Amino acid sequence: MNILVINCGSSSLKYQLINMKDESVLAIGLVERIGLDGSRLKHEAAGKDKKVIEVPMNNHKEALTEVLDALVSKEYGAIESLSEIEAAGHRMVHAGEFYSSSVIITDDVMEKVEECIDLAPLHNPPNITGVKAIMELLPSIKNVAVFDTAFHQTMPAESYIYPLPYELYEKYGLRRYGFHGTSHRYVSQRAAEILGKDIKDLKLISCHLGNGASVDAIDGGKSVATSMGFTPLEGLAMGTRCGDIDPAIVTFIMEKENLDIKGINNLMNKKSGVLGISGISSDFRDIEDAAADGNERATLALNTFDLRVKKYIAAYAAVMGGVDAVIFTAGLGENSADNRKNICSNLEFMGIEIDEELNKVRGKEAIVNKEGSAVKVMVIPTNEELMIARDTLELLK
Amino acid sequence: MNILVINCGSSSLKYQLINMKDESVLAIGLVERIGLDGSRLKHEAAGKDKKVIEVPMNNHKEALTEVLDALVSKEYGAIESLSEIEAAGHRMVHAGEFYSSSVIITDDVMEKVEECIDLAPLHNPPNITGVKAIMELLPSIKNVAVFDTAFHQTMPAESYIYPLPYELYEKYGLRRYGFHGTSHRYVSQRAAEILGKDIKDLKLISCHLGNGASVDAIDGGKSVATSMGFTPLEGLAMGTRCGDIDPAIVTFIMEKENLDIKGINNLMNKKSGVLGISGISSDFRDIEDAAADGNERATLALNTFDLRVKKYIAAYAAVMGGVDAVIFTAGLGENSADNRKNICSNLEFMGIEIDEELNKVRGKEAIVNKEGSAVKVMVIPTNEELMIARDTLELLK
Repeated sequence: MNILVINCGSSSLKYQLINMKDESVLAIGLVERIGLDGSRLKHEAAGKDKKVIEVPMNNHKEALTEVLDALVSKEYGAIESLSEIEAAGHRMVHAGEFYSSSVIITDDVMEKVEECIDLAPLHNPPNITGVKAIMELLPSIKNVAVFDTAFHQTMPAESYIYPLPYELYEKYGLRRYGFHGTSHRYVSQRAAEILGKDIKDLKLISCHLGNGASVDAIDGGKSVATSMGFTPLEGLAMGTRCGDIDPAIVTFIMEKENLDIKGINNLMNKKSGVLGISGISSDFRDIEDAAADGNERATLALNTFDLRVKKYIAAYAAVMGGVDAVIFTAGLGENSADNRKNICSNLEFMGIEIDEELNKVRGKEAIVNKEGSAVKVMVIPTNEELMIARDTLELLK
Repeated sequence: MNILVINCGSSSLKYQLINMKDESVLAIGLVERIGLDGSRLKHEAAGKDKKVIEVPMNNHKEALTEVLDALVSKEYGAIESLSEIEAAGHRMVHAGEFYSSSVIITDDVMEKVEECIDLAPLHNPPNITGVKAIMELLPSIKNVAVFDTAFHQTMPAESYIYPLPYELYEKYGLRRYGFHGTSHRYVSQRAAEILGKDIKDLKLISCHLGNGASVDAIDGGKSVATSMGFTPLEGLAMGTRCGDIDPAIVTFIMEKENLDIKGINNLMNKKSGVLGISGISSDFRDIEDAAADGNERATLALNTFDLRVKKYIAAYAAVMGGVDAVIFTAGLGENSADNRKNICSNLEFMGIEIDEELNKVRGKEAIVNKEGSAVKVMVIPTNEELMIARDTLELLK
């Protein structure tokens, strides 16, 4: 069975076609600048040359039409006919409190996702657009929604309620939702497999450290605390997002810099994080280079980032009453030995001992703690697309 | 030597007259509703009856005049003549980055405190007013400023810098300052005394849990991380303050509830915290009663509060690479065995084991961990006034 995995952003569309017999990727690609000048499709089928197609694509339906054409292209395609696509799995962001796992998309599901637009105004609309386009173009196949928030719906109330007037929770659903759920779920399941244990018996802390970053406490396979909150702005310092700050700062900056709501949200989401501290870049590689050259603000940005991850790891061990393994994933988590080392330093008191030699690994699965470390430290590349495809397969059974 | 300790709020004035020979309190009192209808002074000298004096007091100078009259009253006073007051120690809130310890007040100090009004618009002006009043009424004595922020000036940059555009730190001093410094300093010094250790050899976590609440990591006698931030709004859930929330929530509420900056700040400072969650009260005793009666939101408020303290304790152990003792102080910390127990539950993995029997203590110094607990758990009533008096004495020597 081949499953098409789709991830629609406001002007982008990522996809993978996965053969579920062996979970191999038959094709992978990306459409950029949908609805803008210079829209293009980058496509690559397994064993074939990359193909870049530059044509106007005014909306997600036109983009998906190009994607499907590419998938069945004699020259650079992956399958002979669209009938070989047996289902589509959609990465969707926000399901509010409606869903705690993936679901087959029905009219009712679409209504629920539309009800959640207020909670994810930038993400849910293009997600919906993508589903509708597939429904029109491939009307016979089933669509499955895999939500970023669903995994965290198992959090107990004391983990998701904010100390704000309770009526705001009742009126607007104002609570912690958490994101990156598909990634945290994938790496936690993979960790259990690698350790040869039942996930029900494990206390895991997953650190998804990319340009967006979050930490998740997973007790017995269930998310019990996570650092992203009502929106993906809360928690760790990120590439350009501020994460946790004194909430009084928001209005202080608005007043001092004469910013309106849009202006302050732009500052906190696009100009903050390690970019804000370093003044150099949101890309950790640039910051690491500058730090190596002696730039103090670059060093400060890295130290601030690492300290915050370290604090979340300890806090989440406290939430679970201990931890069996800490997992690093996503761009920085998979690739930066320095950050992993700094994050784990000083955590020996709670049984976390990283091995500097084993830790010199990039982008592949590895156990990097010292022999005898009470807590395992693991590097596990994330694979959200595969998780989406697996959920889709499971629901179709 | 007798030292007058003064703590001026916007419409209030608290004082203690302390005899530094034996650190005994000669008199203690409070003026309320300064500049408002119904202003009154509650005064009590050691060994004498309480006295309530209801007279109009239009400003802090008039209030201090009444206080000084009360102190030398034949009937209910504590001293025979004002010349027996040899110095005044002032609790002051914000010294920005100017002072990392207490100082004798000079014109230059007054200028610096005035420069910091922007950082503490509600607190520094009455503090300044109080100092000026004493200078006029007791022109011959020295005044000492003991700042709430000073103790935290030892924090490393990665603990105080926010992941925001660095220019905002340079332009406005936008950084974490921390508060409750005098309290955290007092109980950490007292903990070292009780444990019979040099504070330089101790890693301590101080939990000041009152209507305002903060946690402090104190490594070798120096504050290295603290939960209150740029303002006293950040960190723990408090009586009416929200503490840490997703910063995107601030503008979300402003838009949905049509609030301006004053309105949202009022909501976050006065209508949130355990009052917001429970809908019952900002007083933990009321909430505990309601929880005991089966009120679910009261239970949720307590659990949310406790969980957050627990997370900070673990996070701050990570900051220091371990912890020797956890200290509970202030109203709730000193008196609520239940909260202390819940906060320490699940922390056995890091060597914290509370003894339920020993923990049944209220408002007095006690060590409440189990025998064999790697980490000491201590209850230490705070005494900011004594700390202020000690600093004053020290600086006059």
